[in-house]
Amino acid sequence: MQELIAARMRNVKPSFVREVLKAAGRSDLISFAGGLPAPELFDVEGLREATLAVFDGNAAPALQYGPTDGNAELRAALAALTNERGANAQPDEIVVTTGSQQGIDLVARAVLDPGDIVLLERPTYLAAVQVFELAQAELVGVEGDEQGIDPDELERVVEELAARGRKPKMLYVVATFANPSGSTLPEARRRRVLEIAVKHGLLVLEDDPYSELRFTGEPVTPMIGLARDIDGASELTAYMSSLSKVIAPGLRIGWMVLPEWLHSRVVITKQASDLHASTLAQHTALNYLRSGRLPGHIDRIREAYRERAEAMMASLERHLPEGVLTYRRPEGGMFLWASMAEGVDTMALVEKAVASGVIYVPGIPFYSGNAPTHHMRLSFVTVTPEVIDEGVRRFASAVLD
Amino acid sequence: MQELIAARMRNVKPSFVREVLKAAGRSDLISFAGGLPAPELFDVEGLREATLAVFDGNAAPALQYGPTDGNAELRAALAALTNERGANAQPDEIVVTTGSQQGIDLVARAVLDPGDIVLLERPTYLAAVQVFELAQAELVGVEGDEQGIDPDELERVVEELAARGRKPKMLYVVATFANPSGSTLPEARRRRVLEIAVKHGLLVLEDDPYSELRFTGEPVTPMIGLARDIDGASELTAYMSSLSKVIAPGLRIGWMVLPEWLHSRVVITKQASDLHASTLAQHTALNYLRSGRLPGHIDRIREAYRERAEAMMASLERHLPEGVLTYRRPEGGMFLWASMAEGVDTMALVEKAVASGVIYVPGIPFYSGNAPTHHMRLSFVTVTPEVIDEGVRRFASAVLD
Repeated sequence: MQELIAARMRNVKPSFVREVLKAAGRSDLISFAGGLPAPELFDVEGLREATLAVFDGNAAPALQYGPTDGNAELRAALAALTNERGANAQPDEIVVTTGSQQGIDLVARAVLDPGDIVLLERPTYLAAVQVFELAQAELVGVEGDEQGIDPDELERVVEELAARGRKPKMLYVVATFANPSGSTLPEARRRRVLEIAVKHGLLVLEDDPYSELRFTGEPVTPMIGLARDIDGASELTAYMSSLSKVIAPGLRIGWMVLPEWLHSRVVITKQASDLHASTLAQHTALNYLRSGRLPGHIDRIREAYRERAEAMMASLERHLPEGVLTYRRPEGGMFLWASMAEGVDTMALVEKAVASGVIYVPGIPFYSGNAPTHHMRLSFVTVTPEVIDEGVRRFASAVLD
Repeated sequence: MQELIAARMRNVKPSFVREVLKAAGRSDLISFAGGLPAPELFDVEGLREATLAVFDGNAAPALQYGPTDGNAELRAALAALTNERGANAQPDEIVVTTGSQQGIDLVARAVLDPGDIVLLERPTYLAAVQVFELAQAELVGVEGDEQGIDPDELERVVEELAARGRKPKMLYVVATFANPSGSTLPEARRRRVLEIAVKHGLLVLEDDPYSELRFTGEPVTPMIGLARDIDGASELTAYMSSLSKVIAPGLRIGWMVLPEWLHSRVVITKQASDLHASTLAQHTALNYLRSGRLPGHIDRIREAYRERAEAMMASLERHLPEGVLTYRRPEGGMFLWASMAEGVDTMALVEKAVASGVIYVPGIPFYSGNAPTHHMRLSFVTVTPEVIDEGVRRFASAVLD
């Protein structure tokens, strides 16, 4: 049946993390691999009430077809949530998505033709790479450091492309607590990235799933908020976020804030893709947001994640000799980006780690093009401090074996 | 920003029905336009219990990320539901989708390269056309009649394409109670279509959202069931269905049964598209299917739709002089496909109808390529018999004006 398969499917690989987890399938495996929120932190009681409230009064709108851009009251609530982060989003600019993964996909489909260039920080979010490969885009990496993507590098790459007659269409960036690197782009860099985008007519897709998960340091205004001060930047900034990390991934509710020219195209694409996000999930999310429980719940998540990040760092120091592994101290988010000595192959090591009963994600899959082999991503959020310590002990035994 | 928009977006139009409904926006408008299930028939009590049951015991799996192909127990329940219709589906062949619209989109993305040919019955489902246009496919129509797509015509079209060195990749077909025509393909035609597909290496995408809504006549085995008897046909038959018409559209839960070569590609595409369908909605659907309420609920829908179809036909006879409008007597589904005298422009008439307080969908948007102007689709399911009669009275006054 090979002749019936689309060309775009030939280069797309299934998610490395999902495949390793499936292959491992051991119930006693301790996972530092996934980006799964801690299940014991779900606000089950609050979500139970929010779901029940759907059936108070007239339940029909939560069961019937709904508008493609999402329930109007939910869009208003999500605009308010976005604006608390320093943006100035209007409900009409919002599209409710079936999770933020869909947001990346919808923008890619509305914007990218095969062969178009997408710029990505090196390293970058795996599932975004998967979307852009499915869109048959050409992926071009821009180096970053502990402060995220480097604007000088961005400018250099764009100009190098221009010298070859090529013009990139968009830049994908997780500006706060990037996945996998954990880095946060400082405000000055955000402004410079936006200025470069305006200068070169580049769409900036700002993916912001983690910014509420800050447990230390000061919040940085999202790029969509800063774009207002820079002539032409708002037209070129698309913002997306999700309720997955702050309420529950199972709702599959995310949202985008889009400039008008892109909004109309994304709505058409979404209509063809799945008509609209589940109205049951939308009404549940709306009821939860209205219940007033979210701020307190996020405080609890932050506190737990801070404790777990500290526990992981303490365990790494306890079980590993100095110098074997270095890492960036996270200020929030879900991930610790760690590095072994240059030349160490963390991809080969993951098999030994699994044999020892622990799993993490090697750094290689987060890079398009050539990749350093000695990095890894450790998620600290899914398991408790005690389990983290046992996992790090197992990891150390695999490393020191 | 034109230069940032993908080429595929240039030809895609928003759904005609959705746009007309949005433009009309009159609360007193009687709609025969939408394909919306009757809200007063939703099994609200059953769905309330199914949702509540999610929170009995361990709610975490209904709130956490889940497998891309869907919850294993739900896949087993959907396989059983499919097999009651005469198929032989295994849970591993199933992908749970975010509604059946997504099923069409996922198959299109896994199979179609720009310029590939998709065969469609004339007339055909609007939103499928939208997906195939988004995939930049070439749409080729095959004439049908009151028994659905004509296999002789199908063979003729495929051979005519072959003579030009072209080979179509897939055929999209709603075999039972087609939208908009209401026609059902008899078993003999289904077998011939499958034989032609095998002969020419054509993927058959069987979309089956309505078959449970039969209120008269005998069920016909779905093509995926008949494919087992025809050498090579199972490999070339993809089946999709949905809970939207039998439980509630708001769940956004559909499913596909796919041959292995296509299953793996669709799962990768879905992973990039939205990771997985809402686990909250999946668990709610599973609980509802397990409650045993579905068969009785479908009986109630069937009875109500039968009554409404009869009411619409009686009202058309009551309010319109003989010969003004002819229609096919539906055996099930949601639509009555009606025709005025050749040359009448039902697209122009729709504006007069809206002015009179009633709306329907003109036939033209259901055709790709040249389209007859005198057909229309009347949905009889969303409103009660009394409202149907008033709607038809308004329609008649617009026609006879």
